[in-house]
Amino acid sequence: MDKPKITIDEMATFCKRKGFVYPNSEIYGGIAGFFDFGHLGVGLKNNIKKEWWKAFVQQRDDVVGIDGSIITNPNVWKASGHIDGFTDVLVDCRKCGSRFRGDLLIHDKLKIETHGMQLEEISKILREKRLKCQKCGSDLGEPKKFNLMFATNVGPVQTSSSIAYLRPETAQVIFSDFKLVQENARLKLPFGIAQIGKAFRNEISPRDFLFRMREFEQMEIEYFVHPEKQDECPFIEDVLEHELNVLSAEMQKKNDKMKKISIKECLNKKMIKTKWHAYWLALMHKWFVGLGANAEHFRIRQHVKDELSHYALDTWDLEYEFPFGWKELQGLSNRTDFDLKQHMEHSKADLSIFDEETKKKVIPHVICEPSQGVERAFLVFMFDAYEYDKKRENVVLKLHPKLAPIKIGVFPLVSNKADVVKKARNVYDELKMEWTCAFDLSGSIGRRYARADETGIYASITIDFESLENESATIRSRDTTEQIRVKISELKDVLKRCMDGEKLSSLGKAIG
Amino acid sequence: MDKPKITIDEMATFCKRKGFVYPNSEIYGGIAGFFDFGHLGVGLKNNIKKEWWKAFVQQRDDVVGIDGSIITNPNVWKASGHIDGFTDVLVDCRKCGSRFRGDLLIHDKLKIETHGMQLEEISKILREKRLKCQKCGSDLGEPKKFNLMFATNVGPVQTSSSIAYLRPETAQVIFSDFKLVQENARLKLPFGIAQIGKAFRNEISPRDFLFRMREFEQMEIEYFVHPEKQDECPFIEDVLEHELNVLSAEMQKKNDKMKKISIKECLNKKMIKTKWHAYWLALMHKWFVGLGANAEHFRIRQHVKDELSHYALDTWDLEYEFPFGWKELQGLSNRTDFDLKQHMEHSKADLSIFDEETKKKVIPHVICEPSQGVERAFLVFMFDAYEYDKKRENVVLKLHPKLAPIKIGVFPLVSNKADVVKKARNVYDELKMEWTCAFDLSGSIGRRYARADETGIYASITIDFESLENESATIRSRDTTEQIRVKISELKDVLKRCMDGEKLSSLGKAIG
Repeated sequence: MDKPKITIDEMATFCKRKGFVYPNSEIYGGIAGFFDFGHLGVGLKNNIKKEWWKAFVQQRDDVVGIDGSIITNPNVWKASGHIDGFTDVLVDCRKCGSRFRGDLLIHDKLKIETHGMQLEEISKILREKRLKCQKCGSDLGEPKKFNLMFATNVGPVQTSSSIAYLRPETAQVIFSDFKLVQENARLKLPFGIAQIGKAFRNEISPRDFLFRMREFEQMEIEYFVHPEKQDECPFIEDVLEHELNVLSAEMQKKNDKMKKISIKECLNKKMIKTKWHAYWLALMHKWFVGLGANAEHFRIRQHVKDELSHYALDTWDLEYEFPFGWKELQGLSNRTDFDLKQHMEHSKADLSIFDEETKKKVIPHVICEPSQGVERAFLVFMFDAYEYDKKRENVVLKLHPKLAPIKIGVFPLVSNKADVVKKARNVYDELKMEWTCAFDLSGSIGRRYARADETGIYASITIDFESLENESATIRSRDTTEQIRVKISELKDVLKRCMDGEKLSSLGKAIG
Repeated sequence: MDKPKITIDEMATFCKRKGFVYPNSEIYGGIAGFFDFGHLGVGLKNNIKKEWWKAFVQQRDDVVGIDGSIITNPNVWKASGHIDGFTDVLVDCRKCGSRFRGDLLIHDKLKIETHGMQLEEISKILREKRLKCQKCGSDLGEPKKFNLMFATNVGPVQTSSSIAYLRPETAQVIFSDFKLVQENARLKLPFGIAQIGKAFRNEISPRDFLFRMREFEQMEIEYFVHPEKQDECPFIEDVLEHELNVLSAEMQKKNDKMKKISIKECLNKKMIKTKWHAYWLALMHKWFVGLGANAEHFRIRQHVKDELSHYALDTWDLEYEFPFGWKELQGLSNRTDFDLKQHMEHSKADLSIFDEETKKKVIPHVICEPSQGVERAFLVFMFDAYEYDKKRENVVLKLHPKLAPIKIGVFPLVSNKADVVKKARNVYDELKMEWTCAFDLSGSIGRRYARADETGIYASITIDFESLENESATIRSRDTTEQIRVKISELKDVLKRCMDGEKLSSLGKAIG
């Protein structure tokens, strides 16, 4: 298995240099855990969101989307358990006052797995191993729980009842709107409600660039099923043969390595408990791979017992092998009817659904909640696209054409001939109605190709003297540097086919 | 001029009933100023943002986009003046403690214009007119300034230096990233930087549904020009003939009514000071009209002297005639070099640009900042689309096909014939790869058409027995109820042309 070729810090540097991502407020020294997306980053990020929405909302009958607000009535977070329990373990230095996340400190210093480790155990290890402050080496204080929600005050008066929170996850807005959405969209079980939107967590130690941020974006589906039909997945056939790297809780207990097996085998061996859970795991992996990520860089890992959230019956993470190790990309939990029941209890609203078949009211179960950070997907696609090409002596960013922030570059071969430039301009004006394009006339054509490769521009069109004679242009492929010559009138069609996956050489006259 | 046909409250009810917009956390009694977009609302909102981005970023050479974070280093807001000056005038009831926005109280009770009214004058009027509490009728206290930024605490320790703010506008993130974006995207003056994203204002009196919210989304461009070339707009010819309703500061002083005149006349009479300002005003109006809004429901109104923000040399609002009066949709300010200079001073960073021509460093001027709320655009399109059709005895939501959340409905004429349903299903499966579609087989065909009309579905395809015989289907237009019959194989092409504006009757065999 080949790991990403550059470190996370090198990726951050590359992203800043090329206009993908900046530290927020950099001129003021930044602010830890907050980032801005530059002119290329916003394109990639928007394309990721668009493809996700298309695949999981637009093209599905059984999923609708919503877009809820970030600040909600605080009772939502009382009911969900976040006010009482959404905490990390914080430990501070008695001398310099530096603050650390207890489990990460243990993981970094002792290189042991801390998935799901609780306050008591963290205290015990810190004490027994006499861990010291990472900054100044002094003694650490007693670890305590720290709530990760950002609080603010809503309205002109500041009282205890005016405190509200920035949502730490998008899921709860789906639960609190559940009944309205179900009725309005006339949804029948099984169905999903999806949402893309920002979430905020006051991380004790934001780190690893976009991996652990304080402000991030989630793409999430809550998938609801009839409580008595939790294993009736009509789509399971579509994914049974799909293979991926699997690491179950059982395997972790035995210290086994992950194994590449099929969904069918996972189900036969009862590693994954429900077909729905298996279906969504496979689908999410396929989504990444379909957009150009390397299938081998992923695995699914089941949460071990202590690691499970209070609401979860079973959780599998889709993980990716980052330069800093295997990390969660996406958590897929079976949340049961925990959340709907909590909200029913706290709000006194009836969130049950009338089942036409049995003529009974039922409270649906969230059989699976595929939930992922947009920025983590961003990192995956960047890492898997990034390649240093020795022959070209240049970085080539091989983003899938659907994700590339700029699809097409249009270059007049020479910049000092008005008619060549004008012809190139016309081509550009035409193409940009369809795709995000760049027009570049500064520097040698080689330099312009190199710039295009580095920023992931999928195809480069060059207009030269021959273009003036016979209305033709060359198309160069970012990935192969292959070039063909085609009629300008056919450009759009050829580019479309090329972006749909046809080989460039089959679409026109090869050059050189 | 015909005003919207329903009130803002009726619109809120309609939006909730059909799944466009809900009060956030409704099961907990909501939270004032926060709303969620339902399964149709998210579609309309996303389409608005997509069309805006396409028109003003993707299809322009001179504008790039970014996506900055909501929480920033607080020094950004010190430099911008928001910490000291982003306030409204708050007045509270001495008895019941209710809180009001001073200027709105005066406007509502005395029906006088309060644009730009300051604390002193508000105090004076409240005193002189002896205004009382709107709730209990008791005396009001002394008005004071209230900062509208939401504050929160970043990091595990709570100190004065850990306070950060949710951005009250997207603009400042553009200014603080200005230099990085300009260099990375190799931008040359004149150019714009655009952003779509959330902003938060702790409004004293959120009201009028989506009009004055506490959490909302902005679509914004900062357009930078060379300080010595502030009136060289190369695109001005494109808009000179464009006509709109104009109300200048001068006209307001004289109590004149707005007048419908051309951009050319505005410039000739020096009502609008720069060509760039005129250009963007016209363009933004054209954008609304191009997406189906009624041109006559808009006007541009210049800020009167007291109303200008501290950073603005000149501001024109694009206003819309809501059921509750003419209100700002979009503010287009000439912000000069105020912001860049402030950030240079506070951060000590050099935000000037090297001008190749004069070989000198210059600080660009923001000649125009077209800035608008997504939700206000949402309201405009909903109001202008909403129509009660007496003949149909039903609401028809005539959203532009580019904005309609669901483009196509596919209906089997009868729901109990397996082969008809299957054929309809196939058609649906094919079309939904291209557009957001709905499949509906419950109720009579008339009932399904009515549901489609109410939710803005642009075209309805019906599959009947004849479809089985000769592979044909009917297409029904939402706006005219006209129907044609076409070959199923031609459906996609016909629908595409119909959505591009061709008349349905010219595209197939008319029926009935």
